Amino acid sequence: MMELQNDTFLRALNREATDYTPVWMMRQAGRYLPEYKATRKDAGSFMDLCRNAQFATDVTLQPLDRYPLLDASILFSDILTIPDAMGLGLSFEAGEGPRFAKVLQEEADIKKLAVPDMSDLQYVFNAVTSIRKALNGRVPLIGFSGSPWTLATYMVEGKGGTDFLNTKKMAYARPELLHHILETNAQTIIQYLNAQIEAGAQAVMIFDSWGGALSHHAYEEFSLNYMKKIIAGLTKQADGRKVPCVMFTKGGGLWLEAQAEAGADALGLDWTVDIGQARSRVGNQVALQGNLDPAILLSTPAAIEKEVARILASYGQGNGHVFNLGHGITQWTDPENAGAFLEAVRKHSLQYHQ
Amino acid sequence: MMELQNDTFLRALNREATDYTPVWMMRQAGRYLPEYKATRKDAGSFMDLCRNAQFATDVTLQPLDRYPLLDASILFSDILTIPDAMGLGLSFEAGEGPRFAKVLQEEADIKKLAVPDMSDLQYVFNAVTSIRKALNGRVPLIGFSGSPWTLATYMVEGKGGTDFLNTKKMAYARPELLHHILETNAQTIIQYLNAQIEAGAQAVMIFDSWGGALSHHAYEEFSLNYMKKIIAGLTKQADGRKVPCVMFTKGGGLWLEAQAEAGADALGLDWTVDIGQARSRVGNQVALQGNLDPAILLSTPAAIEKEVARILASYGQGNGHVFNLGHGITQWTDPENAGAFLEAVRKHSLQYHQ
Repeated sequence: MMELQNDTFLRALNREATDYTPVWMMRQAGRYLPEYKATRKDAGSFMDLCRNAQFATDVTLQPLDRYPLLDASILFSDILTIPDAMGLGLSFEAGEGPRFAKVLQEEADIKKLAVPDMSDLQYVFNAVTSIRKALNGRVPLIGFSGSPWTLATYMVEGKGGTDFLNTKKMAYARPELLHHILETNAQTIIQYLNAQIEAGAQAVMIFDSWGGALSHHAYEEFSLNYMKKIIAGLTKQADGRKVPCVMFTKGGGLWLEAQAEAGADALGLDWTVDIGQARSRVGNQVALQGNLDPAILLSTPAAIEKEVARILASYGQGNGHVFNLGHGITQWTDPENAGAFLEAVRKHSLQYHQ
Repeated sequence: MMELQNDTFLRALNREATDYTPVWMMRQAGRYLPEYKATRKDAGSFMDLCRNAQFATDVTLQPLDRYPLLDASILFSDILTIPDAMGLGLSFEAGEGPRFAKVLQEEADIKKLAVPDMSDLQYVFNAVTSIRKALNGRVPLIGFSGSPWTLATYMVEGKGGTDFLNTKKMAYARPELLHHILETNAQTIIQYLNAQIEAGAQAVMIFDSWGGALSHHAYEEFSLNYMKKIIAGLTKQADGRKVPCVMFTKGGGLWLEAQAEAGADALGLDWTVDIGQARSRVGNQVALQGNLDPAILLSTPAAIEKEVARILASYGQGNGHVFNLGHGITQWTDPENAGAFLEAVRKHSLQYHQ
């Protein structure tokens, strides 16, 4: 493998000195880019795109070609590959989001759930290897997974949502059934992320997209504890270099102190948290990744620059900040505004690294 | 008017001594009750129900008749009566949620927005008077409004949602336009709530259902500041008694300290906040209302009782807690579980008021 030419992102996750604040954008390979839409059209369905290593490589590299200021790339894939490999039958209906053919609501179905054979996810690891090779050392490659709780919400509800009434009903009425799903997910995710690391991922991120829907107490029991278990089971080194882990609970800003104890190198922050206050709360335990509201990218370059400057000033002097959005970039973003965002981060962050 | 026979709720909002922790449920008159569904069927559409004082009175009193342990009633109405009175054309399509015929996205439309004549909302005040009379002093009657920001999201988007991209785009690209909407909403809400108080409301609540979607900084500018203005403009006394105000930003648990300074007597809490931690953070400035996850009512009486006991223990000894759900009761709730919830609050709260 070609030596890494830009390790700013990895150094920031380890709270080591960098010349500027590194930046990437969640969902940076996506529908806001015309080149992505063209490849997606060639590929067919969304899962066809994920399953084809060449297409997945092409779209992963598209934002890097357009935006030389990006400091990281992320595997193009979906968080629902795991439940799909477990046999639940994933499909994406146009404008409807993901759907599963089977749901886990009956005890008999739940008890049958088991860690899938990683060979059923080989297409993901092939994509990782292909992307890593194509990157040729430009920037690090991030592998990722959904969290056990977040995957469970889709597996129990059968689709996306925001209130997760069936999953929560199970959490309170039949907690042992939900714990079986969560434990199976956690064991699967350990294997899945370690296989991504083996295939070439240089950092990993756990997306707990729906952990913020839980109560204070339930978050620890049904989401955080399983992410801790995953982090403890991760491969810590690859190619003689540490593989850092970012944990991101969207809507979890109230629980940063508990998250900081989970063993992750960095915590993702959504935009509801003031990043300076977050830094005070977690001290030197972890780096922080975030946290511009992606809706701001719909406004103007001047407004974007002002908000970027505000976030950098709030974090303040020193290391340990990876700039990002607080959630994925929306499909309605003008690619020029994304560029203005990246330029603003570079321009305004130099002063905090002297 | 008949003298109030149970003022436990009002005393708790004022952090005065009570014999037990009072309780009510957001959306307690609603689709989980068969008697509500029957009245709704007689009334026709949802707005037909809101516009008819007798029907609104009937459904407001239904949960009180079923559950003698309820310590408050709340006007049956909708938060979108105000934009409807402003001429935006509200309708509810089956299974789709609210829709507006007109949206506020063009500068010319926004500049025409003005405080509506309160006579266009007379049906709400008539309902308040009718309900207050029918209550005959059993429990206090709560009036309410959506917050300026929350109403603005519907007025700009034209419908419900969770990301509010058009509204946020305006907030960052054309803040003066959004501020005109918010200021108009705030001035309208002051008149609207004061007219409810004059018509018989004994407490008022501001529902900032979507304030939690804003960034830390934007929350103060676009939501909290306008709620402060409303609270400053509210009638403080009626019938020789203080009219307390509850402010509730769902998803706003990170910002309780700022909320506690807004002038409200009490803050609503959703279930993501630990109520004991919230109490420590706000000190003796305000009472707290909340905060059981309504999804828990879908489980079992035993699980409900356990969570109720946990929340009461977390709040601890003393006054200033009104028990409630962290959001509206869902239509899928078994009415017996709602009863188990109310009984658990009474049973377990006595020990904290000795």
